[in-house]
Amino acid sequence: MSAPKTARGLEGVIALESKICSIDGTAGSLVYRGYDIADLAANCPFEDVAWLLWTGELPSGAESERLNSQLAAHRVLPPAVHEFLARVGEHAEPMSVLRTAVSMLPLYDHPLESDDDPLTQSIRLTARIPTIIAAFERRRAGLMPIRPLTHGSTAHNFLYMMTGSEPGEAAEHIFDTCLTLHAEHGLNASTFTARTVAATLTDLHSAVTAAIGALKGPLHGGANTAVMHMLQELESNQMSPQDFILTKLEKKERIMGFGHRVYRTIDPRAVILKELLQALSDEQGGSVWLDMSMEIMETMTASKNLYPNVDFFSASVYATLGIPADMFTPIFALSRVSGWTAHVLEQWNDNRLIRPRAAYVGPSGRSVGSTHTDKRPS
Amino acid sequence: MSAPKTARGLEGVIALESKICSIDGTAGSLVYRGYDIADLAANCPFEDVAWLLWTGELPSGAESERLNSQLAAHRVLPPAVHEFLARVGEHAEPMSVLRTAVSMLPLYDHPLESDDDPLTQSIRLTARIPTIIAAFERRRAGLMPIRPLTHGSTAHNFLYMMTGSEPGEAAEHIFDTCLTLHAEHGLNASTFTARTVAATLTDLHSAVTAAIGALKGPLHGGANTAVMHMLQELESNQMSPQDFILTKLEKKERIMGFGHRVYRTIDPRAVILKELLQALSDEQGGSVWLDMSMEIMETMTASKNLYPNVDFFSASVYATLGIPADMFTPIFALSRVSGWTAHVLEQWNDNRLIRPRAAYVGPSGRSVGSTHTDKRPS
Repeated sequence: MSAPKTARGLEGVIALESKICSIDGTAGSLVYRGYDIADLAANCPFEDVAWLLWTGELPSGAESERLNSQLAAHRVLPPAVHEFLARVGEHAEPMSVLRTAVSMLPLYDHPLESDDDPLTQSIRLTARIPTIIAAFERRRAGLMPIRPLTHGSTAHNFLYMMTGSEPGEAAEHIFDTCLTLHAEHGLNASTFTARTVAATLTDLHSAVTAAIGALKGPLHGGANTAVMHMLQELESNQMSPQDFILTKLEKKERIMGFGHRVYRTIDPRAVILKELLQALSDEQGGSVWLDMSMEIMETMTASKNLYPNVDFFSASVYATLGIPADMFTPIFALSRVSGWTAHVLEQWNDNRLIRPRAAYVGPSGRSVGSTHTDKRPS
Repeated sequence: MSAPKTARGLEGVIALESKICSIDGTAGSLVYRGYDIADLAANCPFEDVAWLLWTGELPSGAESERLNSQLAAHRVLPPAVHEFLARVGEHAEPMSVLRTAVSMLPLYDHPLESDDDPLTQSIRLTARIPTIIAAFERRRAGLMPIRPLTHGSTAHNFLYMMTGSEPGEAAEHIFDTCLTLHAEHGLNASTFTARTVAATLTDLHSAVTAAIGALKGPLHGGANTAVMHMLQELESNQMSPQDFILTKLEKKERIMGFGHRVYRTIDPRAVILKELLQALSDEQGGSVWLDMSMEIMETMTASKNLYPNVDFFSASVYATLGIPADMFTPIFALSRVSGWTAHVLEQWNDNRLIRPRAAYVGPSGRSVGSTHTDKRPS
């Protein structure tokens, strides 16, 4: 038997079969459970999309109502989690705070809740993550957290808990669409992490905690925060966006928000986000972030033949909504938890431990011998 | 281009090249950095093995001394972590506590410490995990945690902090050997998780937190606790070990601690653990766990041709040392953190995002259309 070739980064390897998400990188299409992302973004609220990801079907009216009641019932956090958020300090890194708070949740659940079926646990976690993020944002600003409403969508409640005032319909609609666009994307690094962890038959919170840690990385979800830092850097200097980018490219710096392991054309989510950003900008009488983004996109496409990905325009949308840059990746998690948990449910439905091998390329035949002295008690 | 075949569970897939660990599943050999596991177990303390895993070389006398000073300096936990452990409650699941405490650590680090090089961070984390586990064990027993000593090995300090009295040399030596045996094992599910998370260029604590969540699963590190529960079930009834196992097999129940994705013969760590258990049992004038384990092993080998893995005998060793069953998996983490962090260092040394693909086998061409009513504000 010849040794199998090393598939670095598992590029091109098909790790499993899934009924959740289909991506055509060449055509630039993204499909959740058979529905095109543009169709879902235009016609369904995030909660219905989450239900679709979890169950395979859009909810009936009654199912949708029940789901929204369940989400409303579970938005409140256990007191111990609030205490942690109150004491963690204003300089704490938001993704580390979210990772820790999610890891902590099952420790304070009512004993019966840990026996809930995985779908119910997924709904509860999807309800709680927005409250964690908003409560931390309030605490670090020296403000008291705001209790979630007993009504309203995930987007409505999140924007309300962040700012203290109920959002306008336009802002809610745009934010809701952003949640749908970020909900699921096949075996990206965090989702693959969630499935790998879940495949040991550990608990749902271990899988999601792990996924949050993966999403934090600048090669993954951390990219939208990095895009914003780039836009802020550009805003604070006197260069044109084109000169700014060309100078960076000359210095071989990486331009965040462009290119994707899967897409060979424009990311379909970037197309929708660009439209949302344009509508939002028109409403506000122009947006500096939109103007910069458009020129950066044109420069990158012309000079490097690289297309924007989901992170590029989401940064400007969130910034135009007044959200701080280091909250962008937590907001990605707020949405993607639906995809992560959908994949965990699918993994558990037909489980197999995920365990590849490494090709050993190190030394062999060494022995400790007399050169090394054992200092242990004998 | 024909579609690549799905590699379920990534079995047989070579995900990366590594210089850390070589396993021959047919010969039953396990080699860390070119040194056979039996050689290391017999001749090196755990700390030197951890250094070997991190750096590729056994430490010089001076390096070993410096490493032990660093470990001693970092065994103390930040006060906020002690507060969490004090308040989490006696019924908290130990791996969930450990996962949360490790996730929490960087939030309370001195700002300069987050800039430390990854090796220094790995040493600090390896120093702190035993203190977390022991402090939680004390707290749930209603006792105050014990401060680590300023001298002594990881094994010595851990057993001291668990029990309040310094361990005898035999117990320390056996426990130290257990740590070496569990330190590293190639791309097992938790280590592969750590590398997948690290490959997004996230932080070290995100990678280790994720790995702890994976290790918790009963198909991975959780197996040693499951073995103990089986032995306790056997002890509490009147059956012979052979009848007990044969009855379980007849009912198609899974016998924990047998078989391994990689080994087709006896796990070399099980061989060493069996000897340690025999020595420990002789010293104590016999061990009920040893007698049961030997008969179970013979029954499984004869009837199923399945061999014990590392989890099978480590359960009896820890039980004979007086350690509670639900601490076995945290102790696995206490040791394996050295391997996890060695793999993270190696990953970062030549990074590539780990992102396989899924084969889509779900429906296509659906549209939301008129059957679904959008309930969002327009």
